Amino acid sequence: MLVAQENDRVMLISPDGRRYLITLRSGRRFHTNKGVIEHDELIGRPLGREVSTHLGQVFLVLRPSLHDLLMNLKRVSQIIYPKEIGLILLKLDAVRGRRVIEAGTGSGALTLALARGVEPDGMVYSYEAREEMLRTARRNLEEAGALGNVELFQRDIAEGFLQRDVDALFLDVREPWDYLEQVCEALADGGVFGALVPTTNQVSILLAAMAYHPFTAVEVLEILERHYKPVPQRLRPEDRMVGHTGYLLFARKVARLQKERPACETIGSI
Amino acid sequence: MLVAQENDRVMLISPDGRRYLITLRSGRRFHTNKGVIEHDELIGRPLGREVSTHLGQVFLVLRPSLHDLLMNLKRVSQIIYPKEIGLILLKLDAVRGRRVIEAGTGSGALTLALARGVEPDGMVYSYEAREEMLRTARRNLEEAGALGNVELFQRDIAEGFLQRDVDALFLDVREPWDYLEQVCEALADGGVFGALVPTTNQVSILLAAMAYHPFTAVEVLEILERHYKPVPQRLRPEDRMVGHTGYLLFARKVARLQKERPACETIGSI
Amino acid sequence: MLVAQENDRVMLISPDGRRYLITLRSGRRFHTNKGVIEHDELIGRPLGREVSTHLGQVFLVLRPSLHDLLMNLKRVSQIIYPKEIGLILLKLDAVRGRRVIEAGTGSGALTLALARGVEPDGMVYSYEAREEMLRTARRNLEEAGALGNVELFQRDIAEGFLQRDVDALFLDVREPWDYLEQVCEALADGGVFGALVPTTNQVSILLAAMAYHPFTAVEVLEILERHYKPVPQRLRPEDRMVGHTGYLLFARKVARLQKERPACETIGSI
Amino acid sequence: MLVAQENDRVMLISPDGRRYLITLRSGRRFHTNKGVIEHDELIGRPLGREVSTHLGQVFLVLRPSLHDLLMNLKRVSQIIYPKEIGLILLKLDAVRGRRVIEAGTGSGALTLALARGVEPDGMVYSYEAREEMLRTARRNLEEAGALGNVELFQRDIAEGFLQRDVDALFLDVREPWDYLEQVCEALADGGVFGALVPTTNQVSILLAAMAYHPFTAVEVLEILERHYKPVPQRLRPEDRMVGHTGYLLFARKVARLQKERPACETIGSI
Repeated sequence: MLVAQENDRVMLISPDGRRYLITLRSGRRFHTNKGVIEHDELIGRPLGREVSTHLGQVFLVLRPSLHDLLMNLKRVSQIIYPKEIGLILLKLDAVRGRRVIEAGTGSGALTLALARGVEPDGMVYSYEAREEMLRTARRNLEEAGALGNVELFQRDIAEGFLQRDVDALFLDVREPWDYLEQVCEALADGGVFGALVPTTNQVSILLAAMAYHPFTAVEVLEILERHYKPVPQRLRPEDRMVGHTGYLLFARKVARLQKERPACETIGSI
Repeated sequence: MLVAQENDRVMLISPDGRRYLITLRSGRRFHTNKGVIEHDELIGRPLGREVSTHLGQVFLVLRPSLHDLLMNLKRVSQIIYPKEIGLILLKLDAVRGRRVIEAGTGSGALTLALARGVEPDGMVYSYEAREEMLRTARRNLEEAGALGNVELFQRDIAEGFLQRDVDALFLDVREPWDYLEQVCEALADGGVFGALVPTTNQVSILLAAMAYHPFTAVEVLEILERHYKPVPQRLRPEDRMVGHTGYLLFARKVARLQKERPACETIGSI
Repeated sequence: MLVAQENDRVMLISPDGRRYLITLRSGRRFHTNKGVIEHDELIGRPLGREVSTHLGQVFLVLRPSLHDLLMNLKRVSQIIYPKEIGLILLKLDAVRGRRVIEAGTGSGALTLALARGVEPDGMVYSYEAREEMLRTARRNLEEAGALGNVELFQRDIAEGFLQRDVDALFLDVREPWDYLEQVCEALADGGVFGALVPTTNQVSILLAAMAYHPFTAVEVLEILERHYKPVPQRLRPEDRMVGHTGYLLFARKVARLQKERPACETIGSI
Repeated sequence: MLVAQENDRVMLISPDGRRYLITLRSGRRFHTNKGVIEHDELIGRPLGREVSTHLGQVFLVLRPSLHDLLMNLKRVSQIIYPKEIGLILLKLDAVRGRRVIEAGTGSGALTLALARGVEPDGMVYSYEAREEMLRTARRNLEEAGALGNVELFQRDIAEGFLQRDVDALFLDVREPWDYLEQVCEALADGGVFGALVPTTNQVSILLAAMAYHPFTAVEVLEILERHYKPVPQRLRPEDRMVGHTGYLLFARKVARLQKERPACETIGSI
């Protein structure tokens, strides 16, 4: 049985499905328009149960999953969504022990997921130029207990990354093609390069620029997530869905046999 | 720099984009219609580079990512695809230290991904009734070096799971609604339940059955992955795409305040 | 050059892209929060041009296309959308001279499109049980000048259709499986049957019921329409899209060689 | 009851769902590997029924719908698919009496659908530079009995279109942006412009070029058609689907109030 502790992040779900992430502190209260819940009614008691506000409204109290954390981060920017993050983790091979660079940090959603992937002995090096972003990301990562596997850098990546021979590197920046020199310097031979860009024009420019660097096995894709109303006798997709978040690119950096060959070849994606 | 060792799994990519997963053994040879590569030309030498067959054809030699491993498992059954697996990992919160049950094992694709997620101190308990499947899965997991975090059980799950209080439980079986009693016995309060089914009828039946058990926050969704031809000046989606693999269901098991209430309520998905 | 006449339907588009369908009547005024346009400034003058309100705001005045008419009907019910209607016209072979039955009429969107397809010498027979619906549909069809090729019936289709040997028949009703006997009575051998239903359960029930009637070449499909922001240097899909309207079914009624054979066979869709 | 006549186009469907379009000629035979059917067994007899080959295999004999005709044209080029054609008809307002230009003719699929839309008193003017294409299209249109409402021109559209004040104009050519001057000359004020292009780069270039011409209400979209296996108790999408055919653009040509204003504005699509 899982018991909530002081300082734990817990998720409360209201009767109408609203989700709230809070950090438990003895003496504090959680206020909504459906009534109040004392943190002390949660601390030291089981998770995964219903609790009642002083108005008799029933909330669920749960340990947030990684998916819950990602969807409920404090945001100062467009976050990368779980539908993309899940695939990014597999593509970047963000498993235990890997060293991964990411830029920009943004609100820290991908940073958090990467950190969970590489722990306990891997590291995520995350770069962000804007101070306010970095502050929000740091708080998000701290609250999620993920700072042990993350180093944050406030630095313009045009000046290069501070690590070498990393296993993977992901760019979520406006003009990723400007930093491919720096990417190739930091990335180990065989390492995975990934990027997320919202427009088709950016995909084209990035692909064109990648052709001048030693990338191979280049892939471009997008992920669509379609939700259904969970009603057994009237099963149907939701009326509205997210139509677009971004295009994902993945490639491998490789050492060429002959340096004078054209730098890049596209190998049929699988 | 990453150096290939005897017994490592490595991925070779042919000039026409074909992927091959091999285990390096001194003295062995890798044969294709494009020529031969001696394993000894790879062992003790860097990964992430081009190598030439005796016919002068250039292959890439890479450390396989988790995505590569999943896509290239030996299969005796339909595997769950990375586009689903990525999201499943986030939803099931398959991070370090978690204890997760899965049935059936199938070819071991999800098993492998879950094992990578929960390592080093978590465990995946995977159930499979069919001996041949289990043999293939065991070999796949062994080759991927994942057996340290996996226990395989040849057992009919109708007889119940052998673990209690697990953090998450995933069913990829034909009639998941038959095992909800067993699921609820094994799953901790607050634990995540997930399932994959290929047809809409199965979704409806499973949803109907879940209403008789203490599930909440029920979600149904599907994931579509759309690949683009990675040609900068002629960017367009591939002509053909995978139209369907399956529907994903997720829910949380919770302890109710009043046991006599109707067992389940659907809380609006997010 | 196209000149607007008294009683014409014209479409006005506001500076912020809002569309208004009006019928020109001498002496009337079109009021919006962006100013007033006198109908007399439009009557007898060209279409396809910009006009200015008394506040100097520039509107477009256009002859509405069939697509514009369908999207801007007065609605008392969920309409069938153009993305589906376009395909329905082709599948039902709603070309000049055909006789087509439809039920229910709803707001008359599909009725209008079918009428445009079969004119000048075909007919659409449209059935609707609810008086209010029928009133709205009649007004919509009258304003679009389509009543010459439409007969409307206020009648419960359980009592049967009044036509025989029609070329096509489309059902947009809640329980289409209840009327297959009536459908087969009205439809010519070789005629096209079509239906729209919003849920997967309805698709299954309808398919199951169709197996007891002489249908063949059965198809089930859905149409997704994805809009892009029309910005050349930042081309990308809209953030949100319509996730679902309904599932379409199509089949052919045929005369069997041997009447005692199982009534229906599914022939692989193309 | 519909009776087949000499020279009619009829569609035969084999037991395994294969579709054949033939023209009935007394004395001829239809040969497949499932046996022979004499045309004389079909001529003068009802459509919409089963017929038996001399080997006892049962075929369906049907009047082809417009959808059937489009899917089974003789092709010398990639055709535009019904899922797009249906929407194009509505957007271009291809109803009775309209005058529509199209280029290139290709195999004549869109030409045929437009002709069916505008008959009996409208016209389709279709341009094609390549003689072989034009020959195939002419045969396809003749077999479908559509030449009464179509004029075909073998002409390079760079030299301009021969009609003025047409209601709509559709381009399915490689570099549609090269012909916008000619489009605007031929199209009536308020007329609908449409285009189909396969790549995102073409969409961007066309949008950029359109900004220099008097277009408004610009829209970009794509249509996805998802087929389901029509099995009531195991309803699910087909494993594979068409991932892409092309992007559709639509706009209206308008007369500006002030000629010196920037030529084009994008009005939010609906």
